[in-house]
Amino acid sequence: MSFNTFGHMFRVTTWGESHGPALGATVDGCPPGIEISEEFIQVFLDRRRPGQSKETTQRKEPDRVKILSGVFEGRSTGTPIQLMIENTDQRSKDYGEIAVQFRPGHADITYHQKYGIRDYRGGGRSSARETAARVAAGGVAQAVLKALVPDLRITGYMVQMGAKHINRARFDRDEILRNPFFIPDAEAVAEWADYLAAIRKNQNSVGAMIELVAEGCPPGLGAPIYAKMDTDLAAAMMSINAVKGVEIGEGMAAADLTGVDNADEIVMGPNGPEFLSNHAGGILGGITTGQPIVLRFSVKPTSSILTPRRSINTRGEEVEVITKGRHDPCVGIRAVPVAEAMMACVILDHLLLDRAQTGGARGQIG
Amino acid sequence: MSFNTFGHMFRVTTWGESHGPALGATVDGCPPGIEISEEFIQVFLDRRRPGQSKETTQRKEPDRVKILSGVFEGRSTGTPIQLMIENTDQRSKDYGEIAVQFRPGHADITYHQKYGIRDYRGGGRSSARETAARVAAGGVAQAVLKALVPDLRITGYMVQMGAKHINRARFDRDEILRNPFFIPDAEAVAEWADYLAAIRKNQNSVGAMIELVAEGCPPGLGAPIYAKMDTDLAAAMMSINAVKGVEIGEGMAAADLTGVDNADEIVMGPNGPEFLSNHAGGILGGITTGQPIVLRFSVKPTSSILTPRRSINTRGEEVEVITKGRHDPCVGIRAVPVAEAMMACVILDHLLLDRAQTGGARGQIG
Amino acid sequence: MSFNTFGHMFRVTTWGESHGPALGATVDGCPPGIEISEEFIQVFLDRRRPGQSKETTQRKEPDRVKILSGVFEGRSTGTPIQLMIENTDQRSKDYGEIAVQFRPGHADITYHQKYGIRDYRGGGRSSARETAARVAAGGVAQAVLKALVPDLRITGYMVQMGAKHINRARFDRDEILRNPFFIPDAEAVAEWADYLAAIRKNQNSVGAMIELVAEGCPPGLGAPIYAKMDTDLAAAMMSINAVKGVEIGEGMAAADLTGVDNADEIVMGPNGPEFLSNHAGGILGGITTGQPIVLRFSVKPTSSILTPRRSINTRGEEVEVITKGRHDPCVGIRAVPVAEAMMACVILDHLLLDRAQTGGARGQIG
Amino acid sequence: MSFNTFGHMFRVTTWGESHGPALGATVDGCPPGIEISEEFIQVFLDRRRPGQSKETTQRKEPDRVKILSGVFEGRSTGTPIQLMIENTDQRSKDYGEIAVQFRPGHADITYHQKYGIRDYRGGGRSSARETAARVAAGGVAQAVLKALVPDLRITGYMVQMGAKHINRARFDRDEILRNPFFIPDAEAVAEWADYLAAIRKNQNSVGAMIELVAEGCPPGLGAPIYAKMDTDLAAAMMSINAVKGVEIGEGMAAADLTGVDNADEIVMGPNGPEFLSNHAGGILGGITTGQPIVLRFSVKPTSSILTPRRSINTRGEEVEVITKGRHDPCVGIRAVPVAEAMMACVILDHLLLDRAQTGGARGQIG
Repeated sequence: MSFNTFGHMFRVTTWGESHGPALGATVDGCPPGIEISEEFIQVFLDRRRPGQSKETTQRKEPDRVKILSGVFEGRSTGTPIQLMIENTDQRSKDYGEIAVQFRPGHADITYHQKYGIRDYRGGGRSSARETAARVAAGGVAQAVLKALVPDLRITGYMVQMGAKHINRARFDRDEILRNPFFIPDAEAVAEWADYLAAIRKNQNSVGAMIELVAEGCPPGLGAPIYAKMDTDLAAAMMSINAVKGVEIGEGMAAADLTGVDNADEIVMGPNGPEFLSNHAGGILGGITTGQPIVLRFSVKPTSSILTPRRSINTRGEEVEVITKGRHDPCVGIRAVPVAEAMMACVILDHLLLDRAQTGGARGQIG
Repeated sequence: MSFNTFGHMFRVTTWGESHGPALGATVDGCPPGIEISEEFIQVFLDRRRPGQSKETTQRKEPDRVKILSGVFEGRSTGTPIQLMIENTDQRSKDYGEIAVQFRPGHADITYHQKYGIRDYRGGGRSSARETAARVAAGGVAQAVLKALVPDLRITGYMVQMGAKHINRARFDRDEILRNPFFIPDAEAVAEWADYLAAIRKNQNSVGAMIELVAEGCPPGLGAPIYAKMDTDLAAAMMSINAVKGVEIGEGMAAADLTGVDNADEIVMGPNGPEFLSNHAGGILGGITTGQPIVLRFSVKPTSSILTPRRSINTRGEEVEVITKGRHDPCVGIRAVPVAEAMMACVILDHLLLDRAQTGGARGQIG
Repeated sequence: MSFNTFGHMFRVTTWGESHGPALGATVDGCPPGIEISEEFIQVFLDRRRPGQSKETTQRKEPDRVKILSGVFEGRSTGTPIQLMIENTDQRSKDYGEIAVQFRPGHADITYHQKYGIRDYRGGGRSSARETAARVAAGGVAQAVLKALVPDLRITGYMVQMGAKHINRARFDRDEILRNPFFIPDAEAVAEWADYLAAIRKNQNSVGAMIELVAEGCPPGLGAPIYAKMDTDLAAAMMSINAVKGVEIGEGMAAADLTGVDNADEIVMGPNGPEFLSNHAGGILGGITTGQPIVLRFSVKPTSSILTPRRSINTRGEEVEVITKGRHDPCVGIRAVPVAEAMMACVILDHLLLDRAQTGGARGQIG
Repeated sequence: MSFNTFGHMFRVTTWGESHGPALGATVDGCPPGIEISEEFIQVFLDRRRPGQSKETTQRKEPDRVKILSGVFEGRSTGTPIQLMIENTDQRSKDYGEIAVQFRPGHADITYHQKYGIRDYRGGGRSSARETAARVAAGGVAQAVLKALVPDLRITGYMVQMGAKHINRARFDRDEILRNPFFIPDAEAVAEWADYLAAIRKNQNSVGAMIELVAEGCPPGLGAPIYAKMDTDLAAAMMSINAVKGVEIGEGMAAADLTGVDNADEIVMGPNGPEFLSNHAGGILGGITTGQPIVLRFSVKPTSSILTPRRSINTRGEEVEVITKGRHDPCVGIRAVPVAEAMMACVILDHLLLDRAQTGGARGQIG
């Protein structure tokens, strides 16, 4: 059973609520002997950290990760790694009305219906704050991948925010970490900022599309039929708060294509098979081809908005809901480092799983 | 570990290759005392069966399911149900060249690279024939759901095949099972048939989009954070052969929306909460709302086509690949009953899981 | 969830009832490229087969295993291996009264209470016949171990049957497969045969103790804390029908010892560490030491006996139960090959798991 | 994969090392709405706490549990419960030599061989200190059981310590928590204390046998074939540090019995079936009968002793090992509350699992 765990071999269990004393991740299955430090993980957490720009929630959380177990003298021991992040800036008084009201588009009502009780403070367990724990676990995965697959590079970026799309002709990877939107398009930054400011001013929020690319992933990863690489990546992305769709390679557009167009032809290169295109997004039959893995996912607009919406409360009375508090006008932005973390976990998970099943051996070609 | 198993509580392990003696599904976790018969399951298998029309592969398989265990005097006993389907029409000689060649867009090359060995006959384990086992298991799930949630109705249908889209203004559910495309649009059938005939004549194939709707699903199903209902549905769909994208409710289009537009407002109806819209597709925070669950997924065009494509063989030589044999020009068509089966399994799985966690109790409103 | 599955990486799901059409095992996680044949597996099944001597049930079952999937041209492909054994000699009419009566000491009453329905024919799922499927799966494990750990040798034998104990001074491994009791003591055979004949004549049955030894197991296998090698072996043995106790190394006698006596002192041998004793039974902290793994388990006497016993029926009426049918007077005998199969599965499982976690690397000494 | 997790539905993942900053348990799958407090859990931890008498280690740890998540306003929310216990009295300097030496009978050498690295401070992960996390998780299980099965009573006690056995004729349950040995025999306490003092004075340690009884457990719990109640209990006990054997009901002595003797005859009592004996230990076919569950397990003597023993170090040199530090002369004593905790977890786990599979319905008798 894995209510709160993901992964087959590299297993991450996240815990914690938005306004509890702390949250974190219990990471089981990390190989021994890997260099891991709080500093290394912190780099990833800092990218996701709230309160850094006016584009994200103004909640101020230092989000300092502490390693409580599983690392000894700077290296993993093969035992569970407990990662804890203390909550410090919980203004629970902001959320008083939410205790009995259900925000439209939010998990308030379903948690109430399922559990009969919910920690309403800041969204409790359904808050995007949970994703900090994922990013911390992803930092551990990145440390392991750095040691085992040094050429692997995972890159996430926004490609769309509501009406705004990046211009792929201006794609510049180096730009991604230089702007608050994680977009690879320096010229678009100011325009996106104005657009989002207007959205916020209108007491509104907006959706987003994120693209993830993993380069340097070895072929042979993925466990058909029900732990395919694309299956597990889709599940990982869909588990992130507010994600409503996920696609690999051509994705939804595959419905438009013919077999002739969609075929990724193969030639023999100096180092092995080379594909002349990548409609498949780096995965065939659920197993990696060695080409870049390419996926995209959509994030719905934040449901917590200042514009009044009709809803009901726990007593069954109809109410108008206005969600105060400190919310991201576009939750898609901070989904970028979260998705990178999830992808790192999934790829590592399959690397370990493949070691178990095949011993890491590869069928030869030529 | 779940290479070939899906589900948490209702666990389905499929086994078998396209041209082996048989294939099937081992179903573990079926509640006891449920009426289950081969005839009931066969209805679902017959919908997926090949050779029924010129729109699908001409392979003739009766696809008769046998129940080998777990059912006694017509009722489930709570022990594993073994479902076996014998292969009868394996023309393995058709596939000779495939033994050493890799079809572009097919799992041939990745299975070879991962395992160093593959059953190349008819695609072996990566063949869509494996989905017959899913449909059989889905039949068991449907039998249980019929007993436990009699109002639940799961409906799948194609909404797009290449350049052709259904006209939603003509949506007629009763039409779906009357035409070979599983489309809810009687007027479109002839046009789609001509279109697909032309595709086939051109030694080509085409992609598709399928929509699934589950009506009557109770609220409260779904186990956040990592076994959310949408997460598990996305994984289930993405595990189907050739699927490249999956979306829930607004799906990829959620990236275009604002929070004001996307909010599903709630009012109090005579029987409880009512939602004024369903952008969420019936799931909030990973838990069902009681509204219809709505999802779509794309299926890429069949990679086995008669048009020659460049590729390599196991010796690393460049070759032109023409795939003879009996292939569906649009694998998306037969994905419809497969997806219904997967959805039935996922919903039942969460129903059982919810019984474990909450005892089936629901938080009251009003 | 694993009602009917055991193993982490090498996962075996057994299915089938005593008097259904067939039973078998779905084996998932078998490494690719391993030589596997029905003949190889059959050798193990033949050891467990009923009807071979007057010491075991007279039910005549050829117990021929069929491989339905996962093996291609004599080698495993990495996909699920389906092993099927057809039931042929079901005399269900023998069991008429059992349909409504509960045999004392048997699972009849608990299956009825749990499931409200049971396949009473021959004990249904609770019959020791299920263990044939385990032995078949164990044959696959043995084939993999033969390839990956050629020096490993797993040996099971009886050490006690009721009042009879083997004489360890006469221990002769070669004798084990030459007598119907699987005892390493040729001189005891006639005496044990007379003893069991008397038990049977008295319409009675008797318990047994079995010892298992695995020599040549590499150090480093076992995943603390909750998938320790001893934990998984204990679970594997306790899951066998009628097993009531299991112990490793000194076992229950460890309660009598002092730390000075129990310490297995270590010296440095030419090939690495050598232990001067093996009180630990080859496992420390849940991880193998490289010494022989030694365990014992007890099997209760067959509960199906001809001597009348007081019980009740499904209507709550008190009855005298006499169990006709063809039952082993000592089920412990045939537990020997079953336990060997389980041990093979557990050791292989941990070998694969260790490859995942450590890549098979070992910490150096010296 | 469950390196550090146990349970199917009520899943407990423990983390932490003996001398790290903290240790704890992540509890997933706790039903919502249950009253849980730190005070309630602390009662169980206090029983296991070191430094309370001269019979156990002199390490002084307050072992105060903190609930970091999953409980809101005093009740469980259905989300993961994080339980943390800070380490405060780590005298790591005591253990200097252990860094490069392997204590005979200890996990030092196997952790080194498996992982190539180990946290040698206080035994690291292999320390019995890990069991504090189990007891905390067991406290959560006890809280849930108190709500769902109020009549259930789990009682553990020592029945043997080396040469000393309790006198069952003097069995007095109320005595168990009044003496440092957890024995139900007031008269034996002084004698056992003298015996243990002599053991310690001789720089030695001693083994033990513990018995566990669960009264009031409902019938129908246990999921055959591979998640039988006895299988899961055996695994749970064997996973506790230093446990070498476990038995249910007649246990190892079942090998001595005949079927006539071993049959637990059944009569019809006013409230349903009644058994005239309990050789089975409350479990038939892996499913509870409603009778008391009775099991015993042995604990080997502490391997850390002051008497010098031969061993080697990491450089392969032969050394004499004397283990200083603060060790229990009989680790079996503190295993009592640990085993009770494990049993509570297993019973609750199966209660939840049974709700999933049968909805909690029971087959009727009479």
